[in-house]
Parts: sequence; structure tokens; C-alpha cells
Amino acid sequence: MLNGFRFQHPVEIRFADLDALGHVNNAVLLTYLESARIAYWLQVTERTGLAALDMILARTEIDYRSPLFFGESVVVGVRAISLRRASFVMEFRALERASQRLVAEAKKTLVYYDFTARESLPLPAAIRAQLFAQDPELREG
Amino acid sequence: MLNGFRFQHPVEIRFADLDALGHVNNAVLLTYLESARIAYWLQVTERTGLAALDMILARTEIDYRSPLFFGESVVVGVRAISLRRASFVMEFRALERASQRLVAEAKKTLVYYDFTARESLPLPAAIRAQLFAQDPELREG
Amino acid sequence: MLNGFRFQHPVEIRFADLDALGHVNNAVLLTYLESARIAYWLQVTERTGLAALDMILARTEIDYRSPLFFGESVVVGVRAISLRRASFVMEFRALERASQRLVAEAKKTLVYYDFTARESLPLPAAIRAQLFAQDPELREG
Amino acid sequence: MLNGFRFQHPVEIRFADLDALGHVNNAVLLTYLESARIAYWLQVTERTGLAALDMILARTEIDYRSPLFFGESVVVGVRAISLRRASFVMEFRALERASQRLVAEAKKTLVYYDFTARESLPLPAAIRAQLFAQDPELREG
Repeated sequence: MLNGFRFQHPVEIRFADLDALGHVNNAVLLTYLESARIAYWLQVTERTGLAALDMILARTEIDYRSPLFFGESVVVGVRAISLRRASFVMEFRALERASQRLVAEAKKTLVYYDFTARESLPLPAAIRAQLFAQDPELREG
Repeated sequence: MLNGFRFQHPVEIRFADLDALGHVNNAVLLTYLESARIAYWLQVTERTGLAALDMILARTEIDYRSPLFFGESVVVGVRAISLRRASFVMEFRALERASQRLVAEAKKTLVYYDFTARESLPLPAAIRAQLFAQDPELREG
Repeated sequence: MLNGFRFQHPVEIRFADLDALGHVNNAVLLTYLESARIAYWLQVTERTGLAALDMILARTEIDYRSPLFFGESVVVGVRAISLRRASFVMEFRALERASQRLVAEAKKTLVYYDFTARESLPLPAAIRAQLFAQDPELREG
Repeated sequence: MLNGFRFQHPVEIRFADLDALGHVNNAVLLTYLESARIAYWLQVTERTGLAALDMILARTEIDYRSPLFFGESVVVGVRAISLRRASFVMEFRALERASQRLVAEAKKTLVYYDFTARESLPLPAAIRAQLFAQDPELREG
């Protein structure tokens, strides 16, 4: 169940995502979360293009709950759960789509970042407002 | 245009598919063709699962026609064009979906293969019939 | 510095590991840790082959400390830091090789696993002894 | 045997390179050739950095001769075999390192390219001379 996740991103499993143990490789699951995070960010901040990816990943925690097999597919719920001056935490929940089986739960800390100046920046007020509008349960601190 | 390709497979571009030059990496495009080939094979032979992937890739030729960028997506046309006793040739045409821009054209030679016995096998009559039904212009030799 | 890490695994950066931001993709860094973990496991348990990878990944925590660029290379320190009946925790520290710059720190929880029976198993006494011999500071619990 | 290939590039197989059939994925082999090609180019043109990758891939032909398994490693021979005004053809031969077993043979057509101006360029005389010095059997046309 993805209750509480207003943004949901589908991911198609590719044959190449499987490893020699016959399930989706653990590192590839992080690629799924990355795709979901970027889709969330572009939609919520109403922008397009690589230049809009103005954040860097500082930390990931992931709990693997069940393996993903060939022929299955995935949906990833994404939400922002807390935010500070220059950083924010996102939460992810990945389900196998047909069975709604829980596949993984994760949290990531992102830092708002200026790639030209190579330094972190305070989250602009407009983006803070967009994140709160998307995820009303988001809290400061 | 994918005239003549009765099987068409969509592929979503992931951020991780891009390389440092900012376009989809050349090797990743082969992953897209692999996904399209496997989708074709499972649908045409009406099977599911890894055990149904009873073929090995012997040769690939690919011409890259234009780069793929972030925010674009792909559709791959797939068809069987010729077949011998134990092998067949497939043709691929990848377009950027929105613009219908030609991205790549490719051919692959596949060998029908028994992974347990580790040897090539004649294509079964049932599969030959399924390939001809899917792609009526397929020819022997 | 990799003081305290008796097992160190070098990883060559491939061009394809970079993403469109020009540094090694965050998910790919997990692939480096996976390679290092597997190399550690096979060496410490004195085995070879896929069947020797009798563990599943339950959890990863990773802190990204600095980006990796094209032309750099990596060395990953690996050690087991704690162990329970059927699981153990490994710690990783990745440095850029030439500069010794800290790239990432991570912990993973692994579960000893029988892929045939599809169930977790107590860590065999022989493997426990091998882990303690490799990493004398390893502790129970 | 890599007779005739004066440039040889080793590649370590990663666990993640294997697919669900238990051997190195066909598309990943192209990543190995890419790494080898880039290493050749940077060494022969005596440059470093992403800006030195001033070429685009126009065509690849690859014949897969034998599968690569976990625990094996690879060495790729690379040479330039022909060159025109703005393009050149490179030849690759990949062997499993310990057994010297032939894994794949390939040819790639590269176009010398100005990524800023987005157009192909004549190969500079200095680079032509470097390619001929590296591979004396290189021919025009």
C-alpha cells in the first residue's frame, strides 16, 4: 500500500537489471529510487532538464524487504518528510505492482546545491512552498 | 516511422542511462534493444519466464543515427527478417517517441539454444510458425 | 586512510559509471561496494563461484562524502564489525586512490541464506571463525 | 592471442555485470570495449579528461564468440585499422585473461567531433600522426 504517498512513479524492470541470482540487483534498486526522486523533483518544482537537478545526495538508508523477479514491475512512492535550511529528507516505498508486495523502504538526505558555484544553498522559498503543497505533512527540522 | 514493424516496444529513459556527455550511453542503447527483443520473443512464442529465453546472441550490428537526451523517450520496432535451421536474424529500429526522430538501426543474429545441454538446437516447428505469423515477410536462408 | 581495514579492494572507474552530472553515479557506488563485499567474502571464506554467495543484503546505509570524477580510481576498505546468529554487519570506507580523499562510508546488514531452501540459516561455526580471524575486533550482537 | 594489438586494456568483471543467465551481459561487453577504446584514445593522443573524448560512435559490429563467467577476467586488444578525413575504424579483440579464450571480436566506426559546435571535424594532423605511430599497419580510406 502506498497510503500517504501522493507521488507514485512506475518503473519497468529490464532483463539487464537482474543479476546472476535471478533477481533485481540491489544497486539497481537504487537506480529505480533515483528515477522516482528525479520525476518527483521535476514535477513538484515544475521544471525540466538536467539543470533543474540542483541537489546532491548526501545519504541513503534502504531496507530490502523482498526480492524482485523477472516479469514483475515496480511502483515507487515518494514524499518529502522533513526539511532544513539547505537540505531535506525524502522517503521512498517500493512495491511490486501486481501483488502490491513491499520490496523496499528507504530514506535519502538531499542537499540543495549550486553546481556552478560548487556550494550548498538555502532552499528557495518558492521550492519550499512547492514541497509543502505536494506533501502537507512535511515538517521543518 | 516504424512502418513494417508490427511489434513495438516502449522504453523509458532513466537518468542513470545518460553518460558524462549528457546523452544515453551507446552501450545502454543495446540494453534497450535487449529489452525489446525479449518482449518480442515472449509475446510471439506465448511464454513467460527466464527459461523461455532459449536463445543466445551471436552478432550485433548497430548504426547510431542521433543521440538521445534527458527527458526524451524511446520506442523500438522489432521484427524477424530471416531464419535458418538453428538461427535467425532480427531487425530493430529505435525512434525518439515524441519527435519520431531516428535514433538507431540494428540487426542481431540469434541462435536457438539449449542452456542445459549447452548446444544449439533446430528452431522447433511451432516457434517457426509463430515467427512467420508475426512477421509475414520473414524469409528462409 | 583505511586504518583498521585489513581487506582493501581496488575498483577501476569506467566511463559508463559517470552520469550526466559528470561524476560517478550514486547507485554505481553501491556496485563498487558490492564488488568489494563479494571479494572479501570469497577470500575470507576461502571459496569461489556464485554458489558461495550464500547471503542476502537486508539493509544499506551510505553517507556520500565527496564525488568521484573521471580519471580517478577507488579503493574500498571492508570489514565485518558485528555478528548475530544468522546475520552480520559489514562496514565500508571508499577512498579515491591517488588523493586518499574520503568518498563514502557505509554499513550493510547481510543475512546468511540458503537460496535452495529459501530461508535464512545460522552462520556456520567455520565461517564465524574465519570472520573473527580476518577482523579480530568483530563482536557478537 | 592478441598478436597485432599493441594496446591491451584489462577489465575486471564485476558481479553486477552478470545477468540472470549467469554470464556477462551482452550489452555490458560493449561497456568493456568502451573503456578500452577511451583508454587507447587518451594514451595515444596523450591527453586526459572528458574534453579529450572528442569523437562520437557511429557504428558497432560485434561477434560474440564465447560467454564470460563469474571469476574470470578480460583483456581487450584495441587498434585503429583505417581512417578517412573525419572518421576512423577501430578493431577490438576480447580474451578471457587466464585461458586466453576468445570472447568477442568487434569493429567500431568513430567520427571526430566538436561537441561545442556540434559538427564533425577533419582529424587533426597531429592525431593522425599519433594513430599511425601507435598502429603502423593503419591505412587510409
